[in-house]
Amino acid sequence: MSLHRPSRAQLERHLPILQWAKSYDRDTLTSDGVAAVIVTIMLIPQSLAYALLAGLPPEMGLYASILPLVAYAIFGTSRALAVGPVAVVSLMTAAAIGNLALQGTAEYIAAAITLAFISGVILIVMGVFRLGFLANFLSHPVIAGFITASGILIATSQMKHILGVDAHGHSLTTLLSSLVSHLPDTNLITLGIGAGTIWFLFWVRKGLKPLLLGTGMPPGLAEVLAKAGPVAAVAVTTLAVWGFDLTNHGVRIVGQVPTGLPPLTLPGFSTEIWSSLFVSALLISVIGFVESVSVAQTLAAKKRQRIVPDQELIGLGASNIASALSGGYPVTGGFSRSVVNFDAGAATPAAGAFTAIGIGLAALLLTPLLFFLPKATLAATIIVAVLSLVDFSILSRTWTYSKVDFSAVAATILLTLGFGVEVGVSAGVILSIGLFLYKTSRPHVAEVGLVPGTQHFRNILRHKVDTTPSLVTLRIDESLYFANARYLEDYINNRVVCDAPIRDVVLMCSAVNEIDMSALESLEEINHRLGDMGIALHLSEVKGPVMDRLKRSAFLEDLTGRVFLAQYDAWKALSAPETPVAA
Amino acid sequence: MSLHRPSRAQLERHLPILQWAKSYDRDTLTSDGVAAVIVTIMLIPQSLAYALLAGLPPEMGLYASILPLVAYAIFGTSRALAVGPVAVVSLMTAAAIGNLALQGTAEYIAAAITLAFISGVILIVMGVFRLGFLANFLSHPVIAGFITASGILIATSQMKHILGVDAHGHSLTTLLSSLVSHLPDTNLITLGIGAGTIWFLFWVRKGLKPLLLGTGMPPGLAEVLAKAGPVAAVAVTTLAVWGFDLTNHGVRIVGQVPTGLPPLTLPGFSTEIWSSLFVSALLISVIGFVESVSVAQTLAAKKRQRIVPDQELIGLGASNIASALSGGYPVTGGFSRSVVNFDAGAATPAAGAFTAIGIGLAALLLTPLLFFLPKATLAATIIVAVLSLVDFSILSRTWTYSKVDFSAVAATILLTLGFGVEVGVSAGVILSIGLFLYKTSRPHVAEVGLVPGTQHFRNILRHKVDTTPSLVTLRIDESLYFANARYLEDYINNRVVCDAPIRDVVLMCSAVNEIDMSALESLEEINHRLGDMGIALHLSEVKGPVMDRLKRSAFLEDLTGRVFLAQYDAWKALSAPETPVAA
Repeated sequence: MSLHRPSRAQLERHLPILQWAKSYDRDTLTSDGVAAVIVTIMLIPQSLAYALLAGLPPEMGLYASILPLVAYAIFGTSRALAVGPVAVVSLMTAAAIGNLALQGTAEYIAAAITLAFISGVILIVMGVFRLGFLANFLSHPVIAGFITASGILIATSQMKHILGVDAHGHSLTTLLSSLVSHLPDTNLITLGIGAGTIWFLFWVRKGLKPLLLGTGMPPGLAEVLAKAGPVAAVAVTTLAVWGFDLTNHGVRIVGQVPTGLPPLTLPGFSTEIWSSLFVSALLISVIGFVESVSVAQTLAAKKRQRIVPDQELIGLGASNIASALSGGYPVTGGFSRSVVNFDAGAATPAAGAFTAIGIGLAALLLTPLLFFLPKATLAATIIVAVLSLVDFSILSRTWTYSKVDFSAVAATILLTLGFGVEVGVSAGVILSIGLFLYKTSRPHVAEVGLVPGTQHFRNILRHKVDTTPSLVTLRIDESLYFANARYLEDYINNRVVCDAPIRDVVLMCSAVNEIDMSALESLEEINHRLGDMGIALHLSEVKGPVMDRLKRSAFLEDLTGRVFLAQYDAWKALSAPETPVAA
Repeated sequence: MSLHRPSRAQLERHLPILQWAKSYDRDTLTSDGVAAVIVTIMLIPQSLAYALLAGLPPEMGLYASILPLVAYAIFGTSRALAVGPVAVVSLMTAAAIGNLALQGTAEYIAAAITLAFISGVILIVMGVFRLGFLANFLSHPVIAGFITASGILIATSQMKHILGVDAHGHSLTTLLSSLVSHLPDTNLITLGIGAGTIWFLFWVRKGLKPLLLGTGMPPGLAEVLAKAGPVAAVAVTTLAVWGFDLTNHGVRIVGQVPTGLPPLTLPGFSTEIWSSLFVSALLISVIGFVESVSVAQTLAAKKRQRIVPDQELIGLGASNIASALSGGYPVTGGFSRSVVNFDAGAATPAAGAFTAIGIGLAALLLTPLLFFLPKATLAATIIVAVLSLVDFSILSRTWTYSKVDFSAVAATILLTLGFGVEVGVSAGVILSIGLFLYKTSRPHVAEVGLVPGTQHFRNILRHKVDTTPSLVTLRIDESLYFANARYLEDYINNRVVCDAPIRDVVLMCSAVNEIDMSALESLEEINHRLGDMGIALHLSEVKGPVMDRLKRSAFLEDLTGRVFLAQYDAWKALSAPETPVAA
């Protein structure tokens, strides 16, 4: 950023709102308004439920769905992303702050606010320094495995509300054993409400819309009514608890929810809290960013729009800081609500701001009505939402395609279930990188020959090709770098040491994208050793950038053989009649 | 390993001594004996000095040079490697145990013994599980930078003995500031002994041998006398301190060194000590192994012998365990003494065992003579030895060749000097891996065309090639995996989105050695998006192993275009006359 007055283009890059606001008109307003109404209806029960999942008071879910949406509308680049509390991040929040404080204490709430703030700072720093690429180190299979395992953990953790018992734990085993030990305490009325709501929500998803369309209702309205299923469940079960006085029969309710707009809150700044929350905040930021960006990209591609990942980091960072300053907890872009927002016709991020107004009104007016809302209803909405995240097909797909990917997925799922979200996702990332490094450290090397009648060379073990006894051509199928340099030395040594007729070794470098300093030293060593045996070392098909670099070293001067542009040139020169051919 | 009686070949693989012992004869005995005498003369002052460097009593240096050599002779595969205390490992030992206990206490000594034991266990485990390849993740430049920085740290740490003052620290800045603050306490006689010895040792290295040869002395004898320089310095300065009663003038001496063979010692087994020493032991093991193996390989190559890296791990592990059981501290193969051993004619590892006898005799007979040996003399031998390790040329070589390698070296040197050996080498490894991952996450993609008159395709920016407007061929110069999958999506999207005539995109995969699950999903996405724009996606030159895997997915069925064996086939099919050509 320069010290001069920034140009309009620069401003627009950093404040995407300036781009879309200038062409904002009545039509866009209508589209955004309609989308906002639908998302608001969907978001009210979700906000309350995810706050419950994070172990926080329900109003924090509402607060996290107001200012963060406004902040994203100003700084975000996606036109359809709906920001707010989401299931996986809520679970990760509970795991992170559960180590620091007890649920229900003021410290627990303060830690959640601080976590949102740290997460916001991390996201903004990543955005400013264009570190969005770091998220690419979460491989698709690891994310898929992590989301599936998180879905299972979340659904299991909510079973206590369905049964009306106390249970706790951050891993599947601790959760299950805690649930089983409390099973005798099950409250049957609570179970009825919970199980009934789960059945109702599944039915709304699958059966309601076709039914309504069958009555001749316009598809748009049918869609809205189907999305309003959770709101209906909230209304009906709340009325039931109030009307039949079910609290006296042990049904646990949400209770007092403060009325009013979000309070101004400040994060804690003690280094002790920051250092104990930092890794968790980093994981939440990266997972939240990856989830959010992949939804945003999918939706943008459908309308040939672009999202800017590094600006998305700023947008999500601003949302989290806004959340921390207004009594919320970590937020990110949610998958299902963004899809709903998109389908409902949201045209600009203003739809998010309008949703914020809707949730604000709810916080001002509706909270007294939530007093008798049973926790079982909220748990049921969570369970139905997260079970759609659970998808074990990634296991079978990776099993057929690549055992390495399979092992990363399987480890991520098992470790997430067994040791919780933080261990699971960290292990997944480390394992993916470790397996990649291991693979590249033992490169595939193919001995190749000429496909007759062409200028093309292929593996002698897979194709019928011409070869010459005095000439060995090795195609190295990997960049050469420190981790595999020594492997290549050993490979070539073992190949030539007992094969007397060899006079020339050609390294075909079409797949060598990089030769680092360690590999250069290994090549010098190979050249030297082959020279001692009276064998010339040649290179072929060296790429431009690699060749540029080799020219800056002494290697090409010391090379006993030549460098050929094409492997066919090497073949013509080295398999010439003066060398005895007996293939 | 089978439960059956092992075959002789199996036994020989695990006990290399069985291979060479059977052909052992009088000639080999003579060669080994001569080498052992020379190495013993060199090793006595070195052992004492390196123990001093590690902050340990001098006799521990001798003990570390007896049984470990016998263990290596039994289990090691190198015929010339001389094992014992070395400078860098001694410095790392001091850094590791300095955090646990104060120098001079029994706990400090016990920690050194335990460190050797843990290190031995790690090496053996690595050997049994064939994890020697892990050492490859230490790139050549990182090792070079680390050794150079360690040399500077070691030389600086020994300056206190040359000046006769107290000073301490594990980084260059702490060492230097400590030295400067104690400068007024300098003992001038000590400084005279130290500086004189340094001058003498440098003169012996450079000037003595030519001088002796000039007198007509046989070269072998001149060589031995030149190697005996440190012994002469030890003798002369010890006599001077005794004769002139210099201890009363503040010259610090080695003092009482117990007489006798190494005691039987046992490592500590408390989990607390093991967990606090584990990382240090791992670093010492890996650094020691890398140093040792590279010396051993260099020497073996000169005689067309082979060393087996995984068996070397066993050999070095056995040495360290032997050291821990006999009052020593971590050992490894030393560079200069192995070269001396090799040059002196050592034919088998028995030379090491004979050296052990020599050092054993010294421990039995010579220790009373060491009472008046000034510490300044030992410090001088260390300084002269380690200054030969300092080589900044790696900075200029990497600067010209690769800025990425340069930054890894520079960071390793700066961090080692600034924060000590453990931080330095860990940072070097992490940085090397990080930079490699970063490079592969932004792959080089070249748009290629046909070199006229050939079947060869090269970068359109670097070569005069034929192209067709409706056809874009992109050569991807990297394996496709999770870290770069999204980059490729963006790259292709940006390339085609504003170029209307494009009908076909060919991905030339000659450099793609792997397509993992994440990349497969990205390719599916690319295929889908291009399909939406009416562009067909083709692949060419897909390698055998990659193709095998693609066939196991649904990708090839969904592919809008074709897969061509050779890029030239793709060119013939897709730049055919029916497509409008205007190049």
